[in-house]
Amino acid sequence: MTAELICVGTELLLGDIVNTNAAYLARECAKLGLSVYHQSVVGDNKRRLSSAIRTARKRSDIVFLCGGLGPTQDDLTKETAAKVLKRELVEDPGTKKHIQKFMEEYLRWHPQEKLTENNWKQAQIPQGALVLENENGTAPGLILEEEGTTLILLPGPPGEMIPLFEKKVAPYLRRKQPEVICSATVKICGMGESQAETKIRDLIEKQTNPTIATYAKTGEVHIRITAKAEKEEEAQRMLQPMIRELEKRFGSWVYAREEQTTLEAAVVELMKERGMTLTTVESCTGGALSARIIDVPGASQVLKQGFITYSNKAKRNLVNVKKSTLKEYGAVSEKCAKEMAKGGCLVTGADAAVSVTGFAGPEGGVEAPVGTVFIGCCLKGRTTVKEYHFAGNRSSVREQAVANALVLLRACLMEM
Amino acid sequence: MTAELICVGTELLLGDIVNTNAAYLARECAKLGLSVYHQSVVGDNKRRLSSAIRTARKRSDIVFLCGGLGPTQDDLTKETAAKVLKRELVEDPGTKKHIQKFMEEYLRWHPQEKLTENNWKQAQIPQGALVLENENGTAPGLILEEEGTTLILLPGPPGEMIPLFEKKVAPYLRRKQPEVICSATVKICGMGESQAETKIRDLIEKQTNPTIATYAKTGEVHIRITAKAEKEEEAQRMLQPMIRELEKRFGSWVYAREEQTTLEAAVVELMKERGMTLTTVESCTGGALSARIIDVPGASQVLKQGFITYSNKAKRNLVNVKKSTLKEYGAVSEKCAKEMAKGGCLVTGADAAVSVTGFAGPEGGVEAPVGTVFIGCCLKGRTTVKEYHFAGNRSSVREQAVANALVLLRACLMEM
Repeated sequence: MTAELICVGTELLLGDIVNTNAAYLARECAKLGLSVYHQSVVGDNKRRLSSAIRTARKRSDIVFLCGGLGPTQDDLTKETAAKVLKRELVEDPGTKKHIQKFMEEYLRWHPQEKLTENNWKQAQIPQGALVLENENGTAPGLILEEEGTTLILLPGPPGEMIPLFEKKVAPYLRRKQPEVICSATVKICGMGESQAETKIRDLIEKQTNPTIATYAKTGEVHIRITAKAEKEEEAQRMLQPMIRELEKRFGSWVYAREEQTTLEAAVVELMKERGMTLTTVESCTGGALSARIIDVPGASQVLKQGFITYSNKAKRNLVNVKKSTLKEYGAVSEKCAKEMAKGGCLVTGADAAVSVTGFAGPEGGVEAPVGTVFIGCCLKGRTTVKEYHFAGNRSSVREQAVANALVLLRACLMEM
Repeated sequence: MTAELICVGTELLLGDIVNTNAAYLARECAKLGLSVYHQSVVGDNKRRLSSAIRTARKRSDIVFLCGGLGPTQDDLTKETAAKVLKRELVEDPGTKKHIQKFMEEYLRWHPQEKLTENNWKQAQIPQGALVLENENGTAPGLILEEEGTTLILLPGPPGEMIPLFEKKVAPYLRRKQPEVICSATVKICGMGESQAETKIRDLIEKQTNPTIATYAKTGEVHIRITAKAEKEEEAQRMLQPMIRELEKRFGSWVYAREEQTTLEAAVVELMKERGMTLTTVESCTGGALSARIIDVPGASQVLKQGFITYSNKAKRNLVNVKKSTLKEYGAVSEKCAKEMAKGGCLVTGADAAVSVTGFAGPEGGVEAPVGTVFIGCCLKGRTTVKEYHFAGNRSSVREQAVANALVLLRACLMEM
């Protein structure tokens, strides 16, 4: 089956917001085995929107219409879709009740606002539409089947669209698909994409079902395996030998077997399991490494404190880097990274410390070119330092440094 | 004039990357006064791509084709565009020379790779095309004028596309436009969008030329003023009275008058001017505030060091928060934020310190609900603390806390 996405909204046409909904829906369609060949964006304009819907219905089995379901005059996706399909709008009692309940709750917390006539517009649905109740808003999702094509209307705010898709639309589409698609993601870190591909070239070349594909991320490679079968259990079973094969080939490079586990979450989990604590000593990354770790709920068990030692003086005062090291080797040096990591452990009593020092640019690069970064990891008294040369601008160098600091920490923990 | 965007790439159709190019180009087109009514995405497929180009040429004056200019077999935007316009591909000597030079430089730093036959494919251009040399890559931008419509082909990587657009495409389009469009952005912080709008409702209601529009950002509001005129000087002159009026109404809330100045850059600049240094003491933001400040090139003159005091012990040991404060008031309290900021100044000798402590969720919220954040600012011995209640999930609470810490620091600096 083919699917097509039409996102509706003037704010997209003006570039005021980035179309993350399209990326989300495209990814979910791919996971469900739907082929997406077209995405488009149109404004809140009846003529252009109906023309887009007509074109899409001619070439795709499923047409998503995302956005334009709000209560204002501008929102006309539902009205336009109904007109294209020659259906009347009728009041849906269930939706009306939901709006009433939702708005009562909302107004309780926002006493300065009030329910207006507009709100009831959202209870109007095209005759015969399948209504998907929206737990997080007042605009329901709507499914309109007609002459072999299906229109799926979803609200634009991602906080409403995503839960609706997950809970209502995905199960609906799964039932429509003749086959079940299951996928798994094996995530590896510390190895480049081409090196990873070389290790599994034979698997990629002879892939049929399940299929296998690699995706390069900063410091990581994700390998997605997708199996098709008549039943879910069968598809799940087909994934297993490939997952095991990848685990065998990549060994401890594998840090996760689920899509939702991030590298920082895997590292925090590993340290929690071992009952270890961590401190960070950051120069060029300026707190971005700590911020990424603390993004993991429950990270407080592991990371108790961190230091941003941007100046030489801070490196000396806060984590005892030697004056002579800075003078002889400079702040961007293997020796400085080593002393930063060691000092981090010593000063705080943490079991591990990760240090980052480098030239992120655009200026700097005195003793070494911009992009030169040293990352140190002190673990139970033993310190490892690695030198990196990253390409890209200031924020890209810093992003790569943060990712590789997590990779190095994980590698040291695995070796322990 | 109307413009239309076609982004080309299977990775977009699969949702593996988010289409930030479309948002960028749409925003820039709006600034140039071009009306964008359609955006679309197609894969690397000749038939669908030529159909998309044909449709776009029928309805738009300018058609952007972004992506698919690489050296591999998959990249066929140039070939397809040439075919639609019935033009031959010919070798462009200038581009060939550029590729030679660019690759020599690249291979010097990547000796394990080599120049392949593919690379020369990028020197082939449709006959009569205007070539835009790409400083950051080997695929040139191309402009093809034919029968009143113009195709503009740009490489997909944003690091190549954006500089090409700014330096070559924008001036070209400006010359084509019968009118000149100039815009200015007045950025204010520390005031909500509805409050800001109330202050300028009369200006918004009677807007004609220049036009005026507000955009809500986290902790900030941007007000964009756009003027149309026959000549640039005239348009620029038309902006001035409105800029002055906004400055009069918002006074010290205004932190920038240019699109490219960020809040963190404005704060760093302000501290530089006054020759002041800063330290950060972060709990729930975990380094994200420091990372945002250090993102400003030259921030090292201002921020010498920072502390991530995530645990109570770290708050005590690193910045001397009193044990009794933590016991009696808890870590998420006005008193703790105050001591963190004061301690930051005292321990480091910095002129200013900003502290952040709060419950970002999903757990926590013991003494106060999740989203409660206290931000402290100690400036030359005087400490201000503000209490906030942010809505949203963990990362949204942290993002709002970071933005508001910058806002508070700026407010304290302005009051000084």
